[in-house]
Amino acid sequence: MENFKLVLPEHLNHYGFLFGGNLLKWVDEIAYIAVTLDYPGCNFVTVGMDKVEFRKSIRGGSILCFVTELGKEGSTSVEYRVKVYKKSIETGERVLAFSTSITFVCVDEKGMKKTLCKGNKPG
Amino acid sequence: MENFKLVLPEHLNHYGFLFGGNLLKWVDEIAYIAVTLDYPGCNFVTVGMDKVEFRKSIRGGSILCFVTELGKEGSTSVEYRVKVYKKSIETGERVLAFSTSITFVCVDEKGMKKTLCKGNKPG
Amino acid sequence: MENFKLVLPEHLNHYGFLFGGNLLKWVDEIAYIAVTLDYPGCNFVTVGMDKVEFRKSIRGGSILCFVTELGKEGSTSVEYRVKVYKKSIETGERVLAFSTSITFVCVDEKGMKKTLCKGNKPG
Amino acid sequence: MENFKLVLPEHLNHYGFLFGGNLLKWVDEIAYIAVTLDYPGCNFVTVGMDKVEFRKSIRGGSILCFVTELGKEGSTSVEYRVKVYKKSIETGERVLAFSTSITFVCVDEKGMKKTLCKGNKPG
Amino acid sequence: MENFKLVLPEHLNHYGFLFGGNLLKWVDEIAYIAVTLDYPGCNFVTVGMDKVEFRKSIRGGSILCFVTELGKEGSTSVEYRVKVYKKSIETGERVLAFSTSITFVCVDEKGMKKTLCKGNKPG
Amino acid sequence: MENFKLVLPEHLNHYGFLFGGNLLKWVDEIAYIAVTLDYPGCNFVTVGMDKVEFRKSIRGGSILCFVTELGKEGSTSVEYRVKVYKKSIETGERVLAFSTSITFVCVDEKGMKKTLCKGNKPG
Repeated sequence: MENFKLVLPEHLNHYGFLFGGNLLKWVDEIAYIAVTLDYPGCNFVTVGMDKVEFRKSIRGGSILCFVTELGKEGSTSVEYRVKVYKKSIETGERVLAFSTSITFVCVDEKGMKKTLCKGNKPG
Repeated sequence: MENFKLVLPEHLNHYGFLFGGNLLKWVDEIAYIAVTLDYPGCNFVTVGMDKVEFRKSIRGGSILCFVTELGKEGSTSVEYRVKVYKKSIETGERVLAFSTSITFVCVDEKGMKKTLCKGNKPG
Repeated sequence: MENFKLVLPEHLNHYGFLFGGNLLKWVDEIAYIAVTLDYPGCNFVTVGMDKVEFRKSIRGGSILCFVTELGKEGSTSVEYRVKVYKKSIETGERVLAFSTSITFVCVDEKGMKKTLCKGNKPG
Repeated sequence: MENFKLVLPEHLNHYGFLFGGNLLKWVDEIAYIAVTLDYPGCNFVTVGMDKVEFRKSIRGGSILCFVTELGKEGSTSVEYRVKVYKKSIETGERVLAFSTSITFVCVDEKGMKKTLCKGNKPG
Repeated sequence: MENFKLVLPEHLNHYGFLFGGNLLKWVDEIAYIAVTLDYPGCNFVTVGMDKVEFRKSIRGGSILCFVTELGKEGSTSVEYRVKVYKKSIETGERVLAFSTSITFVCVDEKGMKKTLCKGNKPG
Repeated sequence: MENFKLVLPEHLNHYGFLFGGNLLKWVDEIAYIAVTLDYPGCNFVTVGMDKVEFRKSIRGGSILCFVTELGKEGSTSVEYRVKVYKKSIETGERVLAFSTSITFVCVDEKGMKKTLCKGNKPG
């Protein structure tokens, strides 16, 4: 799944670059959307992130492209890899600015782990 | 272009439905991203919207899919059609919840209209 | 009804002008307040906007004046015209920067259209 | 000057009432607008508030009416009295929910106090 | 209790200084946390503030230190003194930028005043 | 360093728990404050996070305590460990709800890595 986001002044730090905390918030939202669409009928909670790497600073006015890819799948959990690219408005090229992996667990109404809704797995 | 968004409690009105003003804000952001990616090297400003139709109310927790399509193209302006769908998490079906058309004008550094960067037009 | 709003840095786009989406959000809020005050006892939802025109760009620090006027009234719906002016802090003059019309429908507790509470109509 | 505001879920505390901090933020914005419109050509900064009284709790969905009145005027400073009323949507009655006084000082480009632009004083 | 906060561009006014309304919002939040931790088992509402003094303007990128101190204690109410300091990043010195006193009342489930939970008083 | 935060409805997901993305944003802000206070005269950017663990879900109205501890120190980078506790309002006990480590790099005005300002190191 690809998703786009515009970086506005309200998202910047006092050096004029994207405040990292905002990027983390968007990554959590977009990965949650990906897992929810991939496993219809399941409820998910985020349990962890790893290898969070801020590779390039990002200016106001940048257009970001978030690419989520399904990673390892356990019996009750599933991992996604999220890459965030800056799109060059001049040339259309994209540069990797951020990456992480994020893990969700499927839960029942009481918040207890339950088996992934495999029948609905994508593909 | 397709883009997704999660409706959180901070986006609701006091009846528990998406506050229309938030949807309008997202539509403006996403259409701006679309036109900027489609015409690299141009700067755009929103000049108008028309046929803004709120067709279905939208609950917290909904996943919205924004679909933007290039519409009429003038010499200095271009129109996009934006449709917003609610995705059913159970069945994967999508229902049209909102639609509008939105018009951008290409401007120079002084904010004066200029001819669209046609050489870079998509397709 | 007249209503005022201060444009802060958090509302700007990366060119330093008011991000259009924020203006649309404020217009929806203010028109909703107008219709709710004009028809006490009714619940309203926004169903549409038309002739949305961004006429002037708006800088940070501007004071905006929102003027709402009751327009056409149907049996279950009512239209408002909203004009947004920039106030000149030097001269006190005001310049039309934005206009639209917005339509509300009166609904019952189940969200079904119902007749406008005419007895309470203003004037 | 009268100004209206809609209380949305994003403004509430965890008891379902308006979070006081949001009300204080709105009062500062609206009083700043009042003093700026009343003394065109002056720049103001807030220097103090007094007698801040939260009189009634305010639920989500409330429509608030902010009434600002010019109070004492010094050589470089001016005081405003701000009252905030809840409008009853059923009866149209209004109930005083909050009041305060707020003092502004007129400053030059370096942030130093300067004499109020008396020639432009309202009335 | 000491608490820190970073001033980001989203918190500024159009002169590039912290918008006073945001500072008031933070003060209310932090004093509420202090009183809630000091009197476990009580529910509190803010009823007033006094001697609100904005002493120094605050730039983007500043680190603020909020210091709350327990003041007068009544049978159903309690007052806190809040001071906000700017930390110099170069020298580590701190400068008083804002101060106020804020009063809370202890309430029961119906929002009626009740006696402070004295047994749990700190110290 | 200890820092407190109140969880308001605007921070929740549609299940009524703290939206993870907001917690990540706060952690980035608070760790940035810690490193800036510990190494006066240095500018820092976040380069990575690791072992991000969401251990307990967090309800609206919770008071969170963020504890930051200086970890490994390199020549140009420094790591902090951040733990987030839920405070029980009834008993005063605290429960570990979240933990991570976060790494900053010291940069010069051009954004290039530079040696940590060791002379100013805490302790």
